[in-house]
Amino acid sequence: MIPAIKWEDGRLVLLDQRYLPERIEFVHCRNYREISDAIRDMVVRGAPAIGIAGGYAVAVAVRECRDMRAGEEGSVSRSGAGAGYYGECDRYLKEAAKHIAASRPTAVNLMWAVDRVLRKALSVLDAAEKAGAEADQALGEAYAASVGEARAIEMEDLEMNKKIGAYGAPLIRPGSRVLTHCNAGALATGGYGTALGVIRKAWEEGRISMVYADETRPYLQGARLTAWELSQDGIDVTVIVDSAAGYLMSKGMVDCVIVGADRIAANGDVANKIGTYTLACLAGIHSIPFYVAAPTSTFDLSIPDMSAIPVEERAPGEVLHFFGTATAPKDVKALNPSFDLTPNRLVSAIITEKGVIEPPIPENLPRVVRG
Amino acid sequence: MIPAIKWEDGRLVLLDQRYLPERIEFVHCRNYREISDAIRDMVVRGAPAIGIAGGYAVAVAVRECRDMRAGEEGSVSRSGAGAGYYGECDRYLKEAAKHIAASRPTAVNLMWAVDRVLRKALSVLDAAEKAGAEADQALGEAYAASVGEARAIEMEDLEMNKKIGAYGAPLIRPGSRVLTHCNAGALATGGYGTALGVIRKAWEEGRISMVYADETRPYLQGARLTAWELSQDGIDVTVIVDSAAGYLMSKGMVDCVIVGADRIAANGDVANKIGTYTLACLAGIHSIPFYVAAPTSTFDLSIPDMSAIPVEERAPGEVLHFFGTATAPKDVKALNPSFDLTPNRLVSAIITEKGVIEPPIPENLPRVVRG
Repeated sequence: MIPAIKWEDGRLVLLDQRYLPERIEFVHCRNYREISDAIRDMVVRGAPAIGIAGGYAVAVAVRECRDMRAGEEGSVSRSGAGAGYYGECDRYLKEAAKHIAASRPTAVNLMWAVDRVLRKALSVLDAAEKAGAEADQALGEAYAASVGEARAIEMEDLEMNKKIGAYGAPLIRPGSRVLTHCNAGALATGGYGTALGVIRKAWEEGRISMVYADETRPYLQGARLTAWELSQDGIDVTVIVDSAAGYLMSKGMVDCVIVGADRIAANGDVANKIGTYTLACLAGIHSIPFYVAAPTSTFDLSIPDMSAIPVEERAPGEVLHFFGTATAPKDVKALNPSFDLTPNRLVSAIITEKGVIEPPIPENLPRVVRG
Repeated sequence: MIPAIKWEDGRLVLLDQRYLPERIEFVHCRNYREISDAIRDMVVRGAPAIGIAGGYAVAVAVRECRDMRAGEEGSVSRSGAGAGYYGECDRYLKEAAKHIAASRPTAVNLMWAVDRVLRKALSVLDAAEKAGAEADQALGEAYAASVGEARAIEMEDLEMNKKIGAYGAPLIRPGSRVLTHCNAGALATGGYGTALGVIRKAWEEGRISMVYADETRPYLQGARLTAWELSQDGIDVTVIVDSAAGYLMSKGMVDCVIVGADRIAANGDVANKIGTYTLACLAGIHSIPFYVAAPTSTFDLSIPDMSAIPVEERAPGEVLHFFGTATAPKDVKALNPSFDLTPNRLVSAIITEKGVIEPPIPENLPRVVRG
């Protein structure tokens, strides 16, 4: 499996997921703004993956500080004006973090990871300033520490997904035909996947007979990415158009639904790819379990329920075009909400790396998430 | 508005709806098999429209009989062997009708129209045979009569749609934001449309503030055809991906749903484009009226409920490709049911040219349909 994110020689290399599986191309990001652009343009997507990319972006911003400082050699003495420079770095990094976090508004992992790496970098700089250390050296240390922190987020994410898989697989009854939406797989995470992590583990254990992948318009993450990932792992996958899920359920062809999440509120309400709410409604009507798999970094305990989750609206052109070909007349409008909101009452369980949150979800959530 | 179906100099000319609105092309059908292929390949689509095309196809088959007879001049005497030839024609036309009706299995209008034109042709031939008329002349008369019958179906359909519009418009509350799926418009009928006929009339009356058109994968009839039709008429239309309907409803952005039908069972269960059942479920959950608009030729009173309606499964390639570009890895499977089934309990009303069938639909249906 080609990893979605690689840190190579101090440069972030992203597998361009917009053209998969038709073309395998990589985007080499030279600075934090390029990483931010890649997140916005969906070169990399999936809440955990954009968190990881955002973490590395902050590390890259720290290096930019260091390099700017180095570029000033001669005009600014290496030991002098240190205190002023610390202040400039602080401003630069906070500005960069704000810019990176704003590249996609719905996924909370992005903010969480950006904040975590920023805090790491600032704490190193702060300690160095207090110790009267030279700014150059402090910036070098802060850079190393922030790369380490971003890499830690990436490694932890992979580990979390393995745990999510282990907690989630027992929920899947043997012989299940599982429906998933969008791509909550290795490509959307540090590896293995959240929803697809559960599917991978349950498949290994012989619990799954087949997987239905919603194609997931407009970006086709299901057809392009989930079908690709699962077929590479030898997992039996069948693509359907998004609107066929209800019919399959009515025919008794789906035994459970499992999806990822972009943000989960304190009461367990879930923001995820557009179409998720419809699946949750349909699963409810047909008495089919509806599972959400997500690491605890996806939870935003600062917001009480889904009403406070911002839903990203993307450009109409994504709906009105398909691989560059117009699908509708030129003058026609489109509405393109990228996510939707599913109330906790429609969720059968949320599977995290710390355990499974079962109903009543609002009551059981804090215990599991806070560990 | 370019008509979907034209009868020109004894030839059926179909607007090729597969490439609209990108390319405006026509298919000139030379014989009934070419019309049948065009129906199967979705050059023409929409239950009433394929009925009309199927009716003309039977007329073309009658002409083929006549031309074959003419081609045999010299070998078969023009007046002799008449009786045997009547039998051959009967077999040829029944075989042709069976072939045409089988080109799409779900829409009942096709069978209804094919049967109607076939009966017309056979009754003319039967009367001529009994009167001892010359076969040549009888075939000429049968051809003229069957073209007349096909044209009558076409004209009646347009008239029915105007009536459906008039009956349906009062159901739409002023200021409504209406959601529709697939294309039940002028392109799907003899003109004006069923669901879009209601929308046209209600728009004229100032009842509609805007229309949401589901793009309707895999064939994108909503984005390509409905958006095209409505924008040509100056009706405010916004395209959404199919999976966004639930989110819009949850946000209170949809006031009613109106769709067409491919077949309606005796109890009011509805077969229509894949995704219709999902919309009906969502409308039910959100207490939004869900209307079906269809002429009575869409009703199949011979089947008690939806369990007996055959659902056409089309080629996986339609799901796995988009304008010729693969959307998924090569070895991946797809399931492509073209229709789904909506139980009558999810339908707020069925709008026909004979009046509105309101709940309890199974009880009220016979009175309205039988007139």
